[in-house]
Amino acid sequence: MTAAARYGDSGAVLAVLNDVLSLQLAHRSVRKFGPRPVTDDELTALVAAAQSAPTSSNLQPWSVVAVRDPARKARLAGLAGNQDFVAQAPLFLVWVADLSRARRMAARAEREVAAADYLETTIIGFVDTALAAQNAVVAAASLGLGSVFVGAIRNRPAEVAAELRLPPHAVATFGLAVGTPDPTERADVKPRLPQDAVLHREQYDAAADGHIAGYDEVLAAYNARFGLTGNWSGRVLDRLRGPASMAGRHRLREILERLGLPSR
Amino acid sequence: MTAAARYGDSGAVLAVLNDVLSLQLAHRSVRKFGPRPVTDDELTALVAAAQSAPTSSNLQPWSVVAVRDPARKARLAGLAGNQDFVAQAPLFLVWVADLSRARRMAARAEREVAAADYLETTIIGFVDTALAAQNAVVAAASLGLGSVFVGAIRNRPAEVAAELRLPPHAVATFGLAVGTPDPTERADVKPRLPQDAVLHREQYDAAADGHIAGYDEVLAAYNARFGLTGNWSGRVLDRLRGPASMAGRHRLREILERLGLPSR
Repeated sequence: MTAAARYGDSGAVLAVLNDVLSLQLAHRSVRKFGPRPVTDDELTALVAAAQSAPTSSNLQPWSVVAVRDPARKARLAGLAGNQDFVAQAPLFLVWVADLSRARRMAARAEREVAAADYLETTIIGFVDTALAAQNAVVAAASLGLGSVFVGAIRNRPAEVAAELRLPPHAVATFGLAVGTPDPTERADVKPRLPQDAVLHREQYDAAADGHIAGYDEVLAAYNARFGLTGNWSGRVLDRLRGPASMAGRHRLREILERLGLPSR
Repeated sequence: MTAAARYGDSGAVLAVLNDVLSLQLAHRSVRKFGPRPVTDDELTALVAAAQSAPTSSNLQPWSVVAVRDPARKARLAGLAGNQDFVAQAPLFLVWVADLSRARRMAARAEREVAAADYLETTIIGFVDTALAAQNAVVAAASLGLGSVFVGAIRNRPAEVAAELRLPPHAVATFGLAVGTPDPTERADVKPRLPQDAVLHREQYDAAADGHIAGYDEVLAAYNARFGLTGNWSGRVLDRLRGPASMAGRHRLREILERLGLPSR
């Protein structure tokens, strides 16, 4: 894998490259899986990689629930916008921002953890969970496994919490469907914005937006290959149009508060 | 690198292992750097890896500012709790949750992006930035570079935004100091919680907390090796004690709102 596919630009080349970078550059979302299960040894490796990611002040404020039961996967698929690949994947990992562990430790020690009431701590929960999960994504790829994140697990957080018997102060942040890629899936590496659109030197320069028009053409061509219409800008603006485009997630703040991850 | 160091448990072994997993397992924070600069080619590779991470609906809601200017690094070190290694690192990457790009696209197209007013979108900004940055951490390690995240960049977000000339709706989420590890640094792989404390099967089981007491002993012994006191539980509870332990970050919600990442 070279940088050419990553950027949809046949001239893109990395002067520095190795096997790890090549693996990362080759990332694509996998939504169609073969029948082979993900073994327990593989699961152990994915979680060990996840735990190896950095975590703020070593708080380790996350947990992960490994779901293999077909009926439960089907219910979670339903809760996550009826995305069938959630049920089809042999392993569905639900990544949980987990402040409940620290709250239980505090209760046992008769201590206060008032910092856990603030948005800062909720964000640490989400960020540290994401760092861990991304390590699992790369680890999975290294084992020949494909994966895709499922943000729609936030469509109905209370129902997901009930399904997984999450305690108060623990919230599912996103799912990760994992399995062997089915080679018949029609999908490819999705080109990203040119690097000059996102990398700034010393200070931010909004003139980097000048790269968006060309990227819109690259992505429109990519979409057309898969029978889809639209360019990048149009899809971003549709996605961010308003509450109606958010599948219920415009209520996230209120729901997080109720589940015990407040945003004070 | 084996799982033994990762878990501080000489009996821990992964049945599935490869070079990528070994690299991930060997992660440690590096806070003391040699004099060699990080080259532009290396920076390009790190950002290409970051852009290869998954991103919700391909929104790509982040930017990164690469800071090498010694005076600017020193000022950022001051804003981030006077952590000298920020100034000492040859490269300091500031990862930015960037909804300003989409806002500018919307303004040019005379469209609304009302979804960007909600906590859900702010969280997508933080999560996608974290996924990208973690890929950069692993890419850096693959190139022999060490790194450490700097969450203290959120201590004074408005001042950091001014230093980096961030536009409205773009907020520094965390920094990443990058450079060649100085072999004289006294540091090691920090053991994490036993895997059974964080990995749940089918449903969450709070009985996993039974693994914390043993981990407290492991971490107390690790800390003692570096002349530090305390176990894990004590440090977590101290860190989460309350607003006074948050270095100003208890005001994050109000500051994010003012900088244009609201939490509606």
